[in-house]
Amino acid sequence: MLKVAIIGASGYTGVELARILCNHPDITLTAATSRQYAGQALAQVFPNLRKKTNLICENLTTAELCARADFFFTAVPHKTAMDIVPHLLAAGKKVVDLSADFRLRNVAVYEEWYQKHSAADLLNEAVYGLPELYREQIRSSRLTANPGCYPTSIILALAPLLKAGVIDPRSIIADSKSGTSGAGRAAQVGSLFCEVTDGFRAYKVGGTHRHTPEIEQEINTFLHEPVRISFTPHLLPISRGILSTIYAQLKPEVQQNDITQLYEKMYSQEPFVRILPENTFPATQYVRGSNFCDVGFKIDTRTGRIIILSTIDNIVKGAAGQAVQNMNLMCGFTETAGLESAPFFP
Amino acid sequence: MLKVAIIGASGYTGVELARILCNHPDITLTAATSRQYAGQALAQVFPNLRKKTNLICENLTTAELCARADFFFTAVPHKTAMDIVPHLLAAGKKVVDLSADFRLRNVAVYEEWYQKHSAADLLNEAVYGLPELYREQIRSSRLTANPGCYPTSIILALAPLLKAGVIDPRSIIADSKSGTSGAGRAAQVGSLFCEVTDGFRAYKVGGTHRHTPEIEQEINTFLHEPVRISFTPHLLPISRGILSTIYAQLKPEVQQNDITQLYEKMYSQEPFVRILPENTFPATQYVRGSNFCDVGFKIDTRTGRIIILSTIDNIVKGAAGQAVQNMNLMCGFTETAGLESAPFFP
Amino acid sequence: MLKVAIIGASGYTGVELARILCNHPDITLTAATSRQYAGQALAQVFPNLRKKTNLICENLTTAELCARADFFFTAVPHKTAMDIVPHLLAAGKKVVDLSADFRLRNVAVYEEWYQKHSAADLLNEAVYGLPELYREQIRSSRLTANPGCYPTSIILALAPLLKAGVIDPRSIIADSKSGTSGAGRAAQVGSLFCEVTDGFRAYKVGGTHRHTPEIEQEINTFLHEPVRISFTPHLLPISRGILSTIYAQLKPEVQQNDITQLYEKMYSQEPFVRILPENTFPATQYVRGSNFCDVGFKIDTRTGRIIILSTIDNIVKGAAGQAVQNMNLMCGFTETAGLESAPFFP
Amino acid sequence: MLKVAIIGASGYTGVELARILCNHPDITLTAATSRQYAGQALAQVFPNLRKKTNLICENLTTAELCARADFFFTAVPHKTAMDIVPHLLAAGKKVVDLSADFRLRNVAVYEEWYQKHSAADLLNEAVYGLPELYREQIRSSRLTANPGCYPTSIILALAPLLKAGVIDPRSIIADSKSGTSGAGRAAQVGSLFCEVTDGFRAYKVGGTHRHTPEIEQEINTFLHEPVRISFTPHLLPISRGILSTIYAQLKPEVQQNDITQLYEKMYSQEPFVRILPENTFPATQYVRGSNFCDVGFKIDTRTGRIIILSTIDNIVKGAAGQAVQNMNLMCGFTETAGLESAPFFP
Repeated sequence: MLKVAIIGASGYTGVELARILCNHPDITLTAATSRQYAGQALAQVFPNLRKKTNLICENLTTAELCARADFFFTAVPHKTAMDIVPHLLAAGKKVVDLSADFRLRNVAVYEEWYQKHSAADLLNEAVYGLPELYREQIRSSRLTANPGCYPTSIILALAPLLKAGVIDPRSIIADSKSGTSGAGRAAQVGSLFCEVTDGFRAYKVGGTHRHTPEIEQEINTFLHEPVRISFTPHLLPISRGILSTIYAQLKPEVQQNDITQLYEKMYSQEPFVRILPENTFPATQYVRGSNFCDVGFKIDTRTGRIIILSTIDNIVKGAAGQAVQNMNLMCGFTETAGLESAPFFP
Repeated sequence: MLKVAIIGASGYTGVELARILCNHPDITLTAATSRQYAGQALAQVFPNLRKKTNLICENLTTAELCARADFFFTAVPHKTAMDIVPHLLAAGKKVVDLSADFRLRNVAVYEEWYQKHSAADLLNEAVYGLPELYREQIRSSRLTANPGCYPTSIILALAPLLKAGVIDPRSIIADSKSGTSGAGRAAQVGSLFCEVTDGFRAYKVGGTHRHTPEIEQEINTFLHEPVRISFTPHLLPISRGILSTIYAQLKPEVQQNDITQLYEKMYSQEPFVRILPENTFPATQYVRGSNFCDVGFKIDTRTGRIIILSTIDNIVKGAAGQAVQNMNLMCGFTETAGLESAPFFP
Repeated sequence: MLKVAIIGASGYTGVELARILCNHPDITLTAATSRQYAGQALAQVFPNLRKKTNLICENLTTAELCARADFFFTAVPHKTAMDIVPHLLAAGKKVVDLSADFRLRNVAVYEEWYQKHSAADLLNEAVYGLPELYREQIRSSRLTANPGCYPTSIILALAPLLKAGVIDPRSIIADSKSGTSGAGRAAQVGSLFCEVTDGFRAYKVGGTHRHTPEIEQEINTFLHEPVRISFTPHLLPISRGILSTIYAQLKPEVQQNDITQLYEKMYSQEPFVRILPENTFPATQYVRGSNFCDVGFKIDTRTGRIIILSTIDNIVKGAAGQAVQNMNLMCGFTETAGLESAPFFP
Repeated sequence: MLKVAIIGASGYTGVELARILCNHPDITLTAATSRQYAGQALAQVFPNLRKKTNLICENLTTAELCARADFFFTAVPHKTAMDIVPHLLAAGKKVVDLSADFRLRNVAVYEEWYQKHSAADLLNEAVYGLPELYREQIRSSRLTANPGCYPTSIILALAPLLKAGVIDPRSIIADSKSGTSGAGRAAQVGSLFCEVTDGFRAYKVGGTHRHTPEIEQEINTFLHEPVRISFTPHLLPISRGILSTIYAQLKPEVQQNDITQLYEKMYSQEPFVRILPENTFPATQYVRGSNFCDVGFKIDTRTGRIIILSTIDNIVKGAAGQAVQNMNLMCGFTETAGLESAPFFP
């Protein structure tokens, strides 16, 4: 049994990692760190985990952590991650980092959108952890940068169309909506129940959200000439779920059937991507609690645009679940281990 | 006191009309029709109205109705409205019709998207009831076609920009999200609490929603050459509220300040439109229960697009409230009468 | 026009006071205090109030406040209230205090459940602001202690039965459920959207909630021998609304009709209490946004108990609305002024 | 692999059975019946099940069903169940019935609360499927009557106290709150999103809910003299979850510690009951999606009452999960097979 630790267990991503890992057949969870809750049982902080784990939250040094586990999930804020990860790698450990610190391959872009990078030498080594695009690299990686939630939903939806060159990439507009768990567990007025429930709003409007360069990086891998896209995130009064509505100008003569074949070709063997039948569209409630990404689309012949809809559970396929999928690949486990649960509905 | 009747009082628009009208200073509610609930007190069907109205739901003929009131709100499905309205007008009554039957000026377009029109002669006379655009015509109208909820949110957001010619109209994409009251009060599985809550989905994807031609009709009044736009409606797990996120390619050189001035010029004297300050964006929870339309915007200099965000309460400014605003204009009342309540938050 | 100030305008009670008062026909809102938001427009803090008020949040001394208004709502935490109120009264002002500081007539009880009282001499003068029980005293009061939200819902439900002696007071159990706005606007993890939504829990179980002595004080005014009751509050995943389910052993031979008559006798002329017909029960969504208290009941002949159900909007009849009702009485305004809006549904 | 069929797969209990069973290690799902959706893929009716099951909904006769499976879950309404179950048993099959038809041992009580019973001879044979009370009988049963959701939450909470005789059974009041999935998937106005969300109400007030006799039957197994209890169900604006708040007069001298020991003694080895530490209380969001029942309590020394709080997921431990637990017992599988998932939070 592989010994696994979660660094940063007290956020929503941390508890979801624990929830998935406590039933994983090939690993043992040996440590969970939290400065805030050090000394408390993880199941006291998150009572859903009672009887599922006896882990105590600890405040451990990197050296102590290295003595406790061989595989690490770093579920800490960006900037903190880049301080920890190099030490873990130096000790011969494997890491899935769930922060943004190792997602952007270009350090200049990272530093424009975030801050100075103190481990820039790792950016080339880190593999972008989207198994549907980088499965083989992930298998042999010791550092996987787990994708952002919004980028996962958008890139999976666009990849087959970009690869085939059937859309005009400059026309891409991604209008995305996320559940509130994406805002994290920090105590702030804007995330209070009464501020969010029975309401809806956009935020980071006008190309200012930090997932924008991440989305563009992956889109541009398919293109000769880099493009910029429009991305607008919104806050949904739900806990879990992202739905991205993506617009793009379709090349002339491309038909419904052509598009279906492109999706099928790329994803029919994928365990976690579900392409929906014609005139069927995804809904966040059908992927809730699972690692699935559902994709549907429609060609609007009146305007020549294609509208693609894609949904994930933002803390599963958009965070903890994809991280476990990456661990499975990196460690030679069955790719779906620990991730077989069907979405729950209602 | 003007005698007013609601035809079709048992839907969410009907009860909202009753809620607003029971406190209106210039009118008396004299009849409310409902086939389904005939004989029951309206306050029994909608217990929020207890102690606010003693009206009994009735199943009345047009002739009986004409004897009971001088002003009518027809809150019935399209097709039904076109059967009733001509009789009311013939009897010398004034009408605000909340269905789609008199919104489209071109009968061919109506018949393409809906069905055969049996009162097409009234289409030219009917005034599109968006006071911000057609106030003077509404004042002298005897038949006002109350706009659809989505079109209200989209047209108000775009009108100043289209008028000034600062955006490329062919690039318009309206990604709209509506609360579930927009689906009406019909007992159907898709509207059940467990199907909607904690979830999110698009519907009528790809330019197939019937509000599309209504939006295009009003957009095209500003243009020399008609355009088609992309419009995608989504279903929010909230009761009330629409937020439209609208994308358009901005003409070069247009600045934040230019746009602000266009909005201010058109709307600064409007009682129910609120233009938000720079970098402030609307949220449905700030217009809830009110007749306000809030509009904010942001220029994305990376892509050259403007993103406009607009919110209304879909059953107030998007239906019953705007209908009362129209009645106020048609009857010479203060335009804001009955509509002064501030939005409630939280 | 009476000049009115809100001390503590940045909580949910404060914004609701502002929402109601901005449409009140007899007053002008002249000041709103907030330490946290001093210098910001109240409508910036609470965007629902845009175009409804131009007030700026200020951090004012009591002396400055006295120069600005003649009537005060103190919507500050207990302990803070007792420091401010004596100064306002000394300056000849009238006050409705929305904290708990002046609700308990017995200083020993106050100090047992809260802390040392620094203005205990005012406890006898302060009138418990439940108009249905103390209307005449409120009219002539200069200090009204606005009741707690839970007590309002429970006392109104029980008063007619206690007065008539038809229930065993020792058997009273009040199982109450409140919307999350009752927890206030403080940024704390337990009030986050993701912690509350799609969930339900009890808190302060076992007679430990501070509203317990307040409920008992008012119950005991009807009794020769004081009793203690069971009260359990719960947290609902809704913004507004309290429903109390109250159980009591009924005296033998008392019939449905007897109870109905007791309620009708006490409340039929009350503007804000609605007694529901037999076999009809209240729901929080039918009082939302209004000052109504709805009461229904059922006799369970199998067990000899009566079950009474009572609902209010916790920030209207349970806080700001009742406070305005009290102001109306204290100032000789129409009792319902500013409070006529019908509950909104859906 | 045991061949298993779900009779009545199109309700919320049916889809939850399918969700659990599609990952069960010891069985194969071989048939799912639905009159309404016959011919459609189950994963088309419930898109959460895409890629998890290929089952087609069918309208099968009992004979056809018997050829297809050896174990049956009947998830049909009461009355329908009693028509089907005898045929399955006669064919040598084992059955877990999720309706109310075989829960009440006394046919007279059944007929008083429901209707005439056509298979009354099976009432004595049927085992009440609460494994914590009847594990051994269930193991050898061929017909298990799966308990109601409310009774499960109430009986598990009370059993240790009744067994030990530490409470006065005549004083029991169970105030229960359930998520809306409990109302089923029928298209009815009262279950619409807009009628339920942001609201709360009681229903079947005054001892009229059909779970009352079921609760009393099980309570009375611990008593010499039968009692009647008060039970009030309420409708929560959540999908899944029941919380029961139970009040009872405690025998003098009984302490916190005594109660804790009674719970520990009865439940410490139970896989699905979690007794919470002192001053910790359950919440529905911590059992969501799992088969756990969480129980906490508090002694109110002011009134001499104990307040017990108990939560389950109403469609897991309250329906489908408990049914699978019963199947596991009846078939000699590991009792927790298929039910190991941790509750998901948030």
